[in-house]
Amino acid sequence: MSDVYETTSAANAEAFKRLNESDPILEDVLPAIDTLPGMTENTILAAGPPMPWQNYEGGQRDGIIGGALFEGLASDQNDAIAKLDAGEIVVGGAHDFGALGSLAGIYTASMPVFVVRNGTYGNLGHCNFYEGTNPRRLNYGVYDDGVRDRLNYIHEVVAPVIRDSIRRSGGIPLKPIMRRALHMGDELHSRNTAASLLLLRDLVPHLIAVAEKQRDGVEKTVEALTEDHYFFLRLSLASAKAVADAAHGVEGSSVLTGMCLNCKEFAIRVSGLGDKDTWFRGDQASVEPKLFPGHTEDEIAWMGGDSAIAETTGLGGFAQAAAFPLQNYQGEPDVMVARNLSLYDIVVGENSEYRIPYLKYRGTPTGIDIFKVVSTGTVPVLDMGIGGKDGGQIGAGIVSAPMNCFTKAITAFEEKYGKAS
Amino acid sequence: MSDVYETTSAANAEAFKRLNESDPILEDVLPAIDTLPGMTENTILAAGPPMPWQNYEGGQRDGIIGGALFEGLASDQNDAIAKLDAGEIVVGGAHDFGALGSLAGIYTASMPVFVVRNGTYGNLGHCNFYEGTNPRRLNYGVYDDGVRDRLNYIHEVVAPVIRDSIRRSGGIPLKPIMRRALHMGDELHSRNTAASLLLLRDLVPHLIAVAEKQRDGVEKTVEALTEDHYFFLRLSLASAKAVADAAHGVEGSSVLTGMCLNCKEFAIRVSGLGDKDTWFRGDQASVEPKLFPGHTEDEIAWMGGDSAIAETTGLGGFAQAAAFPLQNYQGEPDVMVARNLSLYDIVVGENSEYRIPYLKYRGTPTGIDIFKVVSTGTVPVLDMGIGGKDGGQIGAGIVSAPMNCFTKAITAFEEKYGKAS
Repeated sequence: MSDVYETTSAANAEAFKRLNESDPILEDVLPAIDTLPGMTENTILAAGPPMPWQNYEGGQRDGIIGGALFEGLASDQNDAIAKLDAGEIVVGGAHDFGALGSLAGIYTASMPVFVVRNGTYGNLGHCNFYEGTNPRRLNYGVYDDGVRDRLNYIHEVVAPVIRDSIRRSGGIPLKPIMRRALHMGDELHSRNTAASLLLLRDLVPHLIAVAEKQRDGVEKTVEALTEDHYFFLRLSLASAKAVADAAHGVEGSSVLTGMCLNCKEFAIRVSGLGDKDTWFRGDQASVEPKLFPGHTEDEIAWMGGDSAIAETTGLGGFAQAAAFPLQNYQGEPDVMVARNLSLYDIVVGENSEYRIPYLKYRGTPTGIDIFKVVSTGTVPVLDMGIGGKDGGQIGAGIVSAPMNCFTKAITAFEEKYGKAS
Repeated sequence: MSDVYETTSAANAEAFKRLNESDPILEDVLPAIDTLPGMTENTILAAGPPMPWQNYEGGQRDGIIGGALFEGLASDQNDAIAKLDAGEIVVGGAHDFGALGSLAGIYTASMPVFVVRNGTYGNLGHCNFYEGTNPRRLNYGVYDDGVRDRLNYIHEVVAPVIRDSIRRSGGIPLKPIMRRALHMGDELHSRNTAASLLLLRDLVPHLIAVAEKQRDGVEKTVEALTEDHYFFLRLSLASAKAVADAAHGVEGSSVLTGMCLNCKEFAIRVSGLGDKDTWFRGDQASVEPKLFPGHTEDEIAWMGGDSAIAETTGLGGFAQAAAFPLQNYQGEPDVMVARNLSLYDIVVGENSEYRIPYLKYRGTPTGIDIFKVVSTGTVPVLDMGIGGKDGGQIGAGIVSAPMNCFTKAITAFEEKYGKAS
């Protein structure tokens, strides 16, 4: 059996290499149906491991219904529910369609999505657009006239300007942006302030060219790009998806290539275990929340989230000591440092590109090994936003993955590769 | 005598209030002669406490001669020296003309300068433009065809675009930019990366408008704005000058309103002691250098520098725990934190706007008190660039102010206000 672990060690080194050497490049903005493999006009995607439609509840269920209405697949809520019950509208997991959903994570066919190519390995990752600062958003399970108008604004104003600018640029390498952003207070999950500005900087020459025909649209796009901490998150996620997918399918590797949650359960994906849509499901995640003023813990609702792909690739919680401005949500700086350091115990290596200034430019812990998680008892921590039962974001905090999806994955690993003696 | 110190305490509180509540706003770009009080066509300004022309040496002397040639005041070096000897070309200290010089700090009449208004107190601060990444620069005491071309490029391409954009904006508040930049790895002296991007972000709508007539110039200006860490430094300095000058002249105050050095000596200015051009001169500063590869300590040349105005107003070395990316020059993160914390012992208060994430958003130490410097033995530390004997920047490091200008200022203070019993 020692053979297996020698093999696993080599396989994990290969998975780490793929995580570390991937080179995500922002290449285009396209409607979801034109670029997501398997997407259809009547498919709604949601975050997390996929479930039968009937199992979705709360904000994530509301988000799926909202997506159907936004896409014009149903005339009203009841019509949407009837068509979902009848299978005329189909629900899928965003991850399995090459995309990632933030929180509820709703995609419909016409939505514009970022297309990020992994320049090293050739595969694509996608993510749709940030809806803006208003806490009422489809990705927090809310749909009303205001949400629709803001989605259309993204669709009609922001996405075309970004698309034209990206196409004109010939592709924007995202790794240099993310590498620098880690030196400027971002961890690329809950904080993307610097990355958004660095992206703006790369886009400016092209925005100026695009502005010759549509100055108003460009000015509005600049506003959308920089109004708060989150615009770049969707690029961080699309990038991480392109990176993580490249590391999937290394025979014998026990390295994670995905973590996500739907409204009911958390799940992980392991490089050496099955196809890209093989999920090991466990309990729901747990959270130490810091809520916005006026909210209480009984309002917290889990409505899904694929954004833990950031942590899967050595960012977010695994780079929190780069982002002390998040202390209001993540704990005091010393606590953030200690938590970040503890995560080196559960990974295969240290990123050669993503480095943390406070840790003397030590590379971020990268390549989570399910065996190390179980043997140390240290689960991955995730810098995530928190949704409320009535929709909208009500806070943020430190989310911890449940241990039982890791033990379940180890059982499957040992069934496939043999048990360690 | 206890009366004096009760008065000093109140006076220092007033000086601190002025440092803390000043509101610098970038309002214009103008030729030096059109905005610097006292500037004339045949005046060359240099950094540091002013001296008779004959006393300048090394790179700073070369810079003054270079300035005369750049401005067309002399046909060649010998002609410039003859006219300087004869007093036909006059040398002044930039500080005394409402401006600040980086390193050698050369200003000539036609040079474009940033005009920053203190919105709270009404006074102006100025600084000229960063010359770009080439280490051969007039402000490092070098003048040749390349330096002239790059100065002309700033004059003809970058400055007009920035000027037109600023005018179109109606004025850009700099304090919000600097406050946010401290949360993004800048300390606003040796690192201004985030501030430059934040300025770009504020300028973009106006750059787009200006680009309708001169797209090429705007694209070049964006490049100049963001090519490295230093573009915003000149705005940080102009801003700090507008702030520090507002705090000068508080009767009874022992708070610093300026620190600077020429090629021979370091000097300080004290709020309650004399006019704005009253300098207490001491030995030259000392330095713990980190040099660029290929350089040695015997090459280090002092050629001046007014940039310690940053530290005078609670930035730079006094905010170094905000800027761990500077560790290659300033020491390991723990050392930077300890050094930053030690500076709270020599100031009057903590800035309410400029805060350090790693220190749990503690305000930066602000308002250096000459009595506290002498009683603690802790001198101000300054994040400064280092020039070489043959011109150009050869490194950076931690520069310490000499103690004897503080003891000299205390003597003057006690002569004016009486001796503490």
